[in-house]
Amino acid sequence: MNTTTTIPVNRDVKAELKRQAAEMRQDFARRGTLVINVVSSPGAGKTSLLEATAKHWGGSRRMAVLVGDLATDRDAQRLAPFCPVEQLTTGGACHLEIPLVQRGLEKLGTNDFEFLFIENVGNLVCPASHDLAEHVRVVLLSVTEGDDKPAKYPKMFRTSDVVVVSKMDLLPHVPFSVEAAIADARLIQPDLRIFTVCSLTGEGVADWCEYLDERRQTLVAANAVEETASQ
Amino acid sequence: MNTTTTIPVNRDVKAELKRQAAEMRQDFARRGTLVINVVSSPGAGKTSLLEATAKHWGGSRRMAVLVGDLATDRDAQRLAPFCPVEQLTTGGACHLEIPLVQRGLEKLGTNDFEFLFIENVGNLVCPASHDLAEHVRVVLLSVTEGDDKPAKYPKMFRTSDVVVVSKMDLLPHVPFSVEAAIADARLIQPDLRIFTVCSLTGEGVADWCEYLDERRQTLVAANAVEETASQ
Repeated sequence: MNTTTTIPVNRDVKAELKRQAAEMRQDFARRGTLVINVVSSPGAGKTSLLEATAKHWGGSRRMAVLVGDLATDRDAQRLAPFCPVEQLTTGGACHLEIPLVQRGLEKLGTNDFEFLFIENVGNLVCPASHDLAEHVRVVLLSVTEGDDKPAKYPKMFRTSDVVVVSKMDLLPHVPFSVEAAIADARLIQPDLRIFTVCSLTGEGVADWCEYLDERRQTLVAANAVEETASQ
Repeated sequence: MNTTTTIPVNRDVKAELKRQAAEMRQDFARRGTLVINVVSSPGAGKTSLLEATAKHWGGSRRMAVLVGDLATDRDAQRLAPFCPVEQLTTGGACHLEIPLVQRGLEKLGTNDFEFLFIENVGNLVCPASHDLAEHVRVVLLSVTEGDDKPAKYPKMFRTSDVVVVSKMDLLPHVPFSVEAAIADARLIQPDLRIFTVCSLTGEGVADWCEYLDERRQTLVAANAVEETASQ
């Protein structure tokens, strides 16, 4: 039998990533950057929502996107006409983690943004467990997925601040109750903010963008108070 | 510094699960049970496809379902009117593994089935890496998810035998090219069998059921040859 020294690597790495995320979140706040972690099932419309957001703002906000996928840079190609974007390819991994986000930030080359969106890998399970230094976690739920998803994937809804019910243009064609989905989601997390959106037609996008502006103003104001208090 | 003996637990557990899966697959073949592992994104229509399959057969086949979810037994409730079904609740885990399947089989109480469907957790990433003793792996791709999914989630399509393009009734309302999705999927796995289905209307369900019958007949025939050869 060999004897060797055992180091509890997994625990230490997790604690270190958590510490780094908390530090980065504070740094972003100081620079006035609201960070939004966008999560959902595959194909719920994360990239389309970000396209619609960029179009709505029409260059009036400084925004950037880090977009995660197992493979391909198709989402980055879709967003490139609208804003600075970097593709984070996980090479098969089921979620983003802080080191990949840091690499993406280096590749963006600047950190002078009002809004940094991190589009996670399409997966309603694993990304729930990983802090990416965000101020806001947004989960998209497309009406085509079924209104039973909040109850069936509770951790993702419990750890989110916002639900965007997407693909509202398809609502007449599918068995989906917006009320039932919202009721189930609020059983899990009563403070959830809910938006109903169709990114293709632009329905609901203005309300969503207004919310982002408000969240950023609150962040900047809270940070100013903190800075004054610490002087 | 403490010294201790290190046992490569993870590797051994994986090898043991792989061995058990191979053994179970052979046992199922001997008993004439075709095992089908059904995977997809959340809400792509796995439960609806199994409902439509059971309705199409109308009790003429002995089928059972083990259905995996993070939480709730809603899918089992939906399937219970049609066939024996057991809910496997993972308690947050992102995929099914062999021990949970074994527990489900015990709860079913009998193994006298022609078809055993294992409905995996809705997740297009992690279930790709876990052998559940299936003879056929089927990945559902709903037209509402977008035709870019095979290229973006290659492992799931590479490890599958069949793609069921689902929710075909919604095709007129969404930007989805069946041809592009199939072409991308076949770049990854040239031998994929493709079915286009709408479980709500029953479109394409007969072809899918016919394929299952054929696969089972092939399994039974191959096993008979093997039994004869080993006598």
